[in-house]
Amino acid sequence: MCRWLAYSGDPVLIDDLLYKPDHSLIDQSLHSTMGAETTNGDGFGVGWYGVGDEPGIFHSVEPAWNDRNLREISRHIKSPLVFAHIRASTGSPVQQTNCHPFRYRNWLWMHNGLIREFGRVKRDLMLEVAPELYPRIEGTTDSELFFHLALSYGLEQDPPAAVERAVGLIEEVGREHDVEHPIQMTVATSDGTRIWAFRYSSEGDSRTLFYSTSIETLELMYPDSEDLRMVKAKGGLEARMIVSEPLGERLPGAWNEVPERSWGVVQPGRDDLHSFTPAAPPRRAHALA
Amino acid sequence: MCRWLAYSGDPVLIDDLLYKPDHSLIDQSLHSTMGAETTNGDGFGVGWYGVGDEPGIFHSVEPAWNDRNLREISRHIKSPLVFAHIRASTGSPVQQTNCHPFRYRNWLWMHNGLIREFGRVKRDLMLEVAPELYPRIEGTTDSELFFHLALSYGLEQDPPAAVERAVGLIEEVGREHDVEHPIQMTVATSDGTRIWAFRYSSEGDSRTLFYSTSIETLELMYPDSEDLRMVKAKGGLEARMIVSEPLGERLPGAWNEVPERSWGVVQPGRDDLHSFTPAAPPRRAHALA
Amino acid sequence: MCRWLAYSGDPVLIDDLLYKPDHSLIDQSLHSTMGAETTNGDGFGVGWYGVGDEPGIFHSVEPAWNDRNLREISRHIKSPLVFAHIRASTGSPVQQTNCHPFRYRNWLWMHNGLIREFGRVKRDLMLEVAPELYPRIEGTTDSELFFHLALSYGLEQDPPAAVERAVGLIEEVGREHDVEHPIQMTVATSDGTRIWAFRYSSEGDSRTLFYSTSIETLELMYPDSEDLRMVKAKGGLEARMIVSEPLGERLPGAWNEVPERSWGVVQPGRDDLHSFTPAAPPRRAHALA
Amino acid sequence: MCRWLAYSGDPVLIDDLLYKPDHSLIDQSLHSTMGAETTNGDGFGVGWYGVGDEPGIFHSVEPAWNDRNLREISRHIKSPLVFAHIRASTGSPVQQTNCHPFRYRNWLWMHNGLIREFGRVKRDLMLEVAPELYPRIEGTTDSELFFHLALSYGLEQDPPAAVERAVGLIEEVGREHDVEHPIQMTVATSDGTRIWAFRYSSEGDSRTLFYSTSIETLELMYPDSEDLRMVKAKGGLEARMIVSEPLGERLPGAWNEVPERSWGVVQPGRDDLHSFTPAAPPRRAHALA
Repeated sequence: MCRWLAYSGDPVLIDDLLYKPDHSLIDQSLHSTMGAETTNGDGFGVGWYGVGDEPGIFHSVEPAWNDRNLREISRHIKSPLVFAHIRASTGSPVQQTNCHPFRYRNWLWMHNGLIREFGRVKRDLMLEVAPELYPRIEGTTDSELFFHLALSYGLEQDPPAAVERAVGLIEEVGREHDVEHPIQMTVATSDGTRIWAFRYSSEGDSRTLFYSTSIETLELMYPDSEDLRMVKAKGGLEARMIVSEPLGERLPGAWNEVPERSWGVVQPGRDDLHSFTPAAPPRRAHALA
Repeated sequence: MCRWLAYSGDPVLIDDLLYKPDHSLIDQSLHSTMGAETTNGDGFGVGWYGVGDEPGIFHSVEPAWNDRNLREISRHIKSPLVFAHIRASTGSPVQQTNCHPFRYRNWLWMHNGLIREFGRVKRDLMLEVAPELYPRIEGTTDSELFFHLALSYGLEQDPPAAVERAVGLIEEVGREHDVEHPIQMTVATSDGTRIWAFRYSSEGDSRTLFYSTSIETLELMYPDSEDLRMVKAKGGLEARMIVSEPLGERLPGAWNEVPERSWGVVQPGRDDLHSFTPAAPPRRAHALA
Repeated sequence: MCRWLAYSGDPVLIDDLLYKPDHSLIDQSLHSTMGAETTNGDGFGVGWYGVGDEPGIFHSVEPAWNDRNLREISRHIKSPLVFAHIRASTGSPVQQTNCHPFRYRNWLWMHNGLIREFGRVKRDLMLEVAPELYPRIEGTTDSELFFHLALSYGLEQDPPAAVERAVGLIEEVGREHDVEHPIQMTVATSDGTRIWAFRYSSEGDSRTLFYSTSIETLELMYPDSEDLRMVKAKGGLEARMIVSEPLGERLPGAWNEVPERSWGVVQPGRDDLHSFTPAAPPRRAHALA
Repeated sequence: MCRWLAYSGDPVLIDDLLYKPDHSLIDQSLHSTMGAETTNGDGFGVGWYGVGDEPGIFHSVEPAWNDRNLREISRHIKSPLVFAHIRASTGSPVQQTNCHPFRYRNWLWMHNGLIREFGRVKRDLMLEVAPELYPRIEGTTDSELFFHLALSYGLEQDPPAAVERAVGLIEEVGREHDVEHPIQMTVATSDGTRIWAFRYSSEGDSRTLFYSTSIETLELMYPDSEDLRMVKAKGGLEARMIVSEPLGERLPGAWNEVPERSWGVVQPGRDDLHSFTPAAPPRRAHALA
């Protein structure tokens, strides 16, 4: 179980996003109120778009609340699109290659939740990863394998369809192994321009997910952010956040909850919410047999 | 703020001490109920006597709850005298040299609490450390400096008197810098044979400290420990624990609280409790002037 | 490319094995003379048998030459059977789960060398791992996969045959992917009583491997080891070492080189050297098709 | 003993500075040819000016050659003034607080060399640090103490005079403790606009130090750097590097060696080289006595 945050909009200091709010992500690493665990101290990661074609990634196995390097890079990097994730391990080792966000070319991916009974279903799922992608898997988490399944099913071409296929497969394989509720998830993925967010669980009782589109809301959350003040002064309206747990207690009404079994896309122009329907694709392993 | 545990008695597996009890020290690293913080995730340390003249020390900056090396050495080392400490930093960096227990020759030292306004008083306190001991200070904590003050005042010859002098100095220097309550502490120190434990605070409202002398109590806490079963079978009566927070909820009556402003010694034979009275020694820096 | 050492005999302090010789393993971590790289600073590991049924393992991603915890446990643990390994990564991430020795139940395994073009052959090799063993793979090295192939082929029942099958498979799969020389290896594995050591490479030009059976040799290498003096005084003759690079320059004649394409077993009584002949087993994946 | 690099000029990707040259700083971390040690694997640090008033700092205790986070931030941060340092410990612990560059407000400082017999002279030197600066010292290196002595003597107002005083003190205290050659140093320090570089040793046989002022030279060293191509295209002439060891073997004539006992300043306009003359200031401790 984990907590995550995604920001898209005019460039802001990462520090403003991670440390400034009342109930910031860093604060949540010690005192999450809505997560399955109160402590998320098993590593963290930040991904950001800016210099270069690929996004940058910073992963650490230390608890986020005391990591000096995270503090430093947060104070010295501005970005228009940021992913941040704090991890509470569900069993896999605490190591950098198990930290989110994961990256493939210009894509980032992060996940809160789990593939249940992962040890039992892992091999069957791994067989469905495209062979040319398989050697790129560096860690041992369910989340990274999930990402590579989505990539195998065309994430770069049609993210919602690819995630629906990956989740369909995970549920099909889970049922084959008598797993009652195979998947629990909120997911965010981005190509550097848009962010897709997903909320789903096999049991229909998914982890929380919230979004905020109003610049006024963000400004109230971040009263000390000079960047956000300037965004507003310029008439900027494109600053949004998607979070697994609201930041700050002061503005409960400012956050919109993403409904169960749905996905949305944050992009220049109008945002949309859609229904999410898993759909298992034909199996690669079956084709071999 | 931290949590600690000291064990003395027939040799037991460190694993039995750290992981087996209901509310074990490792569990306290995530969910302390009596500490000033609920999470103690800023490093930890274990010290043990056994092979060799000096005690062994294992320090790590990772949270104890997920550290695999701690788990490994705990399962493969038996010892008759063990110190264990989990840290919640009060500001100094999370690094191995700031982890307890600290060692000097055959002595171990660990501390829960703090020297208040440490930045303001540190230099004056450092001046009182014996010059030949000064370069041995490797970290930046108040606790390690406190240890070296006690060593400078004769810890190896008369531990209670040395700690009373060190605390007297800390209070005197604190008052000179207008610090209202200069020190808050529970301390354990050992020469490999005896353990001295101290409970004191300038404000008379000290951190908790408990001890357990009955082998029956320990056996109930550690129902799965084969070593403790054998200790009892052999008629062993010398197994004791001193803890900053009771392990397990099942036996509240089994723990004795160490009174305010007191110290005790755990040793073969009879244990004793004594009153603790800080007494500032003459100042080295004043002698220079 | 890596360096390793295995010791079997009367219990000695790990410190004597790792730090005392002239050209000790720790010294080799900075200045290897016979390895493919001069620096082996990408993590290390120690495994030892003693307390408990399973061997203990200590893994670290820090360079061995400065790791304080390694120094501590080395000085405070005695063992009759020790594996130690220093790593120079051939590409996979520097993380504890990629450090040798690897463990399964009472077995340890360590490897110097590589499976060539691992990214291309990894998936086909992974398919041959027994499905019940597959989820136990925690890291991303060729060496850990190699270990799980040997386990799948009966390492616990007949180590030489199992390793010959695993190497046969690796060569067969390599050839299918046009890899000229699929494997380069020296391997040590143990069940806690015996040590099997293997030297082989597809190109017939394998990494070096040496063994020493004479207690006089060991005594000369470790003039400061009180344990070894006592072993000799008691008439002990069972202390042996197997190393990827001789320790110390003083005794070139004291080391026997293990021949190309051979394996040996170190056990109570007489040691033997045998020819090593890879033999690919039937393929699990082919059976599916 | 360490290796370092300082860059000043039009903004470039840190990656271009650290990884691209033939004999880059990262390569020197494994294979230094002119340093006192061939391996510099005991931590590293990067400091850069850009976003925010203070420079950013990234410190790590892992060897630079395999650190993924260093690679990431190097590829995603551009800066007009960069310090980079790789460390070979002369005894003090490998921890982030012992990594260079050190920072105070807008100032950075890094040092190659050592204060000899530091354990013997440390206390006397520490007494001369301004009491208000003393609690800011976080690590245990000679280099950080040296920085705080220079700050105590007015580094922010007159860097050359402050460093001359600090070195004068170190030599005076060293002689009092019968240290034959108290200091060996190359030092770089910056306020974000200019870089001062110093080369000196008590024995008159100082660590190497080189500078390069010609944009043509830099371009030849970094044939793949798009930023440097653009700098030249724009007629930029202000790109300079100062290094403890030349980067690349191809251009031996392109580097100018900084003479013994001298200091220089890199700044917009003309650079200058001056003679360096240590001058011990009055002692704070003596004033107390």
